[in-house]
Amino acid sequence: MTSTESPRHRFAVRMDVALPPDMDPAFRDDLLTREKAYAQEWQRSGHWVSLWRIVGERANLSIFEVADHDELHAILWGLPLFPYMTMQVTPLAAHPSDIRAGD
Amino acid sequence: MTSTESPRHRFAVRMDVALPPDMDPAFRDDLLTREKAYAQEWQRSGHWVSLWRIVGERANLSIFEVADHDELHAILWGLPLFPYMTMQVTPLAAHPSDIRAGD
Amino acid sequence: MTSTESPRHRFAVRMDVALPPDMDPAFRDDLLTREKAYAQEWQRSGHWVSLWRIVGERANLSIFEVADHDELHAILWGLPLFPYMTMQVTPLAAHPSDIRAGD
Amino acid sequence: MTSTESPRHRFAVRMDVALPPDMDPAFRDDLLTREKAYAQEWQRSGHWVSLWRIVGERANLSIFEVADHDELHAILWGLPLFPYMTMQVTPLAAHPSDIRAGD
Amino acid sequence: MTSTESPRHRFAVRMDVALPPDMDPAFRDDLLTREKAYAQEWQRSGHWVSLWRIVGERANLSIFEVADHDELHAILWGLPLFPYMTMQVTPLAAHPSDIRAGD
Amino acid sequence: MTSTESPRHRFAVRMDVALPPDMDPAFRDDLLTREKAYAQEWQRSGHWVSLWRIVGERANLSIFEVADHDELHAILWGLPLFPYMTMQVTPLAAHPSDIRAGD
Amino acid sequence: MTSTESPRHRFAVRMDVALPPDMDPAFRDDLLTREKAYAQEWQRSGHWVSLWRIVGERANLSIFEVADHDELHAILWGLPLFPYMTMQVTPLAAHPSDIRAGD
Amino acid sequence: MTSTESPRHRFAVRMDVALPPDMDPAFRDDLLTREKAYAQEWQRSGHWVSLWRIVGERANLSIFEVADHDELHAILWGLPLFPYMTMQVTPLAAHPSDIRAGD
Amino acid sequence: MTSTESPRHRFAVRMDVALPPDMDPAFRDDLLTREKAYAQEWQRSGHWVSLWRIVGERANLSIFEVADHDELHAILWGLPLFPYMTMQVTPLAAHPSDIRAGD
Amino acid sequence: MTSTESPRHRFAVRMDVALPPDMDPAFRDDLLTREKAYAQEWQRSGHWVSLWRIVGERANLSIFEVADHDELHAILWGLPLFPYMTMQVTPLAAHPSDIRAGD
Repeated sequence: MTSTESPRHRFAVRMDVALPPDMDPAFRDDLLTREKAYAQEWQRSGHWVSLWRIVGERANLSIFEVADHDELHAILWGLPLFPYMTMQVTPLAAHPSDIRAGD
Repeated sequence: MTSTESPRHRFAVRMDVALPPDMDPAFRDDLLTREKAYAQEWQRSGHWVSLWRIVGERANLSIFEVADHDELHAILWGLPLFPYMTMQVTPLAAHPSDIRAGD
Repeated sequence: MTSTESPRHRFAVRMDVALPPDMDPAFRDDLLTREKAYAQEWQRSGHWVSLWRIVGERANLSIFEVADHDELHAILWGLPLFPYMTMQVTPLAAHPSDIRAGD
Repeated sequence: MTSTESPRHRFAVRMDVALPPDMDPAFRDDLLTREKAYAQEWQRSGHWVSLWRIVGERANLSIFEVADHDELHAILWGLPLFPYMTMQVTPLAAHPSDIRAGD
Repeated sequence: MTSTESPRHRFAVRMDVALPPDMDPAFRDDLLTREKAYAQEWQRSGHWVSLWRIVGERANLSIFEVADHDELHAILWGLPLFPYMTMQVTPLAAHPSDIRAGD
Repeated sequence: MTSTESPRHRFAVRMDVALPPDMDPAFRDDLLTREKAYAQEWQRSGHWVSLWRIVGERANLSIFEVADHDELHAILWGLPLFPYMTMQVTPLAAHPSDIRAGD
Repeated sequence: MTSTESPRHRFAVRMDVALPPDMDPAFRDDLLTREKAYAQEWQRSGHWVSLWRIVGERANLSIFEVADHDELHAILWGLPLFPYMTMQVTPLAAHPSDIRAGD
Repeated sequence: MTSTESPRHRFAVRMDVALPPDMDPAFRDDLLTREKAYAQEWQRSGHWVSLWRIVGERANLSIFEVADHDELHAILWGLPLFPYMTMQVTPLAAHPSDIRAGD
Repeated sequence: MTSTESPRHRFAVRMDVALPPDMDPAFRDDLLTREKAYAQEWQRSGHWVSLWRIVGERANLSIFEVADHDELHAILWGLPLFPYMTMQVTPLAAHPSDIRAGD
Repeated sequence: MTSTESPRHRFAVRMDVALPPDMDPAFRDDLLTREKAYAQEWQRSGHWVSLWRIVGERANLSIFEVADHDELHAILWGLPLFPYMTMQVTPLAAHPSDIRAGD
């Protein structure tokens, strides 16, 4: 599924963000700029393979492919918005009805 | 993301399946065979774009891309396992940090 | 259901608002004035087709008809009260027993 | 909102239906036929003013306008599917930002 | 059930109050004094027909009889403690086993 | 509040009833007849002081005034429908804003 | 069960305490000192008959024996920590399998 | 608290019982008779130190004092009603405000 | 932590078992015998590294170390009791305060 | 399982930590340094036998082996992060399928 050689493990992660409404605007802009750069860096590296907005909420659904649990934890923990987030991490396996499962 | 021309709308769907443990084995085999064929048909048509098993559970996380709500409802309602399923449907939008969002 | 030509997609949205009781009154008045103007603008455009108060709560139940998920997300995200809101978004389809469903 | 003369009271009702998968098909067909006729009768009378399918679920979101609590209860209790339903009843009031509220 | 002539609609309302422990004592005393006067005014008018304390909690269970949903919403919204309250509103109908139901 | 001489203790009880849809009709009619007679007997004795239907549900909200916990438990346990019920029992005290509290 | 002459009513109460981590230490010490004295006073009077710490939490499980609901409410409401507590009150009756029930 | 010499560990256990309403009456009577005998045996041995009925529910709140986790598990697992029970087990410690804690 | 050479991934799994009380005793004995053999086989292979009973419940807390998500899913899915189980799967990483983390 | 002579009792504890995002950095560093030292001290003493990070969350799953409930409570209560933690304490017993249970 990726071009790396070591086996990769897939996870769905839902991230809900709760920013205090009275956060300093400059601090907030900086935070969101760093968050975007950080998210795009891990997308380019092939670890953060999908990123979708959940309609109507400051939340996203993401798919990650990582070498191990420590790597996934380090990526999530390093998010600039991490202190404002609630995470839901779901390990995914191949589904027998997936038409690409036999590839 | 697909080759169809009309706009497509993306949804995440989590399906949890609860089969009665005392279901007749032949009935059950037939049901699961039909479920697999049905799921693969909608994958090949480009509507059911991802299908993953949730580790340790008779459940899956799926991504759908459909023309409208009636189409998604018809696909889900038609699942042979539908009477045994609990569904959680989440509409997805583009995320501003998605590196492919500007495509 | 509307006079626009492109297909529309219907959603129910429940919005719960939690304003800090010690919010500055002038800020609050301005916020509520802008919220009302914003809500009425999207009602006049035909996107926000119903808006009801939930009895006894600072909350509403609304019906939206939009072109796609990105449009709905943009409308909700742009609400002046969005940072104080919890949203519950439910996609709706035609019901076979609806007497207007065959129209 | 309706042509009746006495005041009407508006409610949102969410109905979730759980039919046993092993229900006798003839009994089930009869039940669903009677349910549809019943639902349409109350739509034509102007009491059941909206009826939408919740995507992916055997459930609906409905809007009722009734003379009083006893009338709403009698309508819901009389549903052929009532013994298989879970109901969530929410009383609705006018919202000050509704552009039709002053009508 | 009351001496007014127009029909009345009955609701149970549970109100849970969460006051910040560090609220200014003078402000708080004033708030509670106004709350009590307000609650008693609507009891005397015959709208707020029962008011009980829930043992061990800053909460009450109340019975209201009102002309319509807008009236009930206006009464609850106007409570001096409303910004600190969580409401649970339950519409009530006559019960067939109530010995006074046939009156 | 009652004419008995010993002190009485007030409780709110919400009862939700779940009857199996395939219950034998004769058995069910007998059960409901006995339930009604039982409920009315305890209303006439002054223990079950209010009984309201919760709109749209096979459920009721009731107010009891009893001598002690054993008496309330015996009344509820003896309900013909008890094996099909879920109970929520809430002890009530006088509220300082109740206009009849000083009586 | 106690040496008082009037009948007593038994309740289990779970109290969860949430103190703000940045509370002024002197205020906090005073609060906890007063809480302890208050709790011991009601233990000595025979109303607060058991008091156990729930392992790993700032919470306790307690058994009370009181004359009526107003008395229990007054004791709980008067706790110095009451504004920081969440209460769960459960009325208890005699159990038919209790070897002391027939005493 | 007991006359045994080895240290004892205290637990609160809430047991909720769900008996199928159509259970064979003779089987049920036998089950309840054995349950009562079993419960009384462990009360007499000093392990099951309190047993109270939760008002209005087929449930109890109990206090156990046992030598270790295996012993508590064996006692609960051996209950004739165990297959019909939901358990909530809470370990209890001494509370610093307990007037008997220094004994 | 194990002697295998490929990297291992650690998971906590809570398994809750709900057996129908009226299950045929011979079928049940066979099921439990096969469950025990299966659980011990995966313990001996080094995949199921800890297995503890949750006190008072037909449930366990287990620690698994596996090569990947598909392997963990296959082990859990293959449990003879799987059709009667509810699973909660939690991926674990190294903790920076673990005194063995630097090993 | 440990080299101490008195019997030990095993518990699983899940700790969720919620630090205010605006905590003073020096205070926070000091807090985390003390937390780590404290956690390692109890690991070295043999009481805190396992400590794992829950992937993607500021939370851990731990196994403790202690002499009694008071000892476990004292260890948890003494954690420098205790005022910011939510605890879930689960007593564990031997499982009959554990291959080391007979040791």
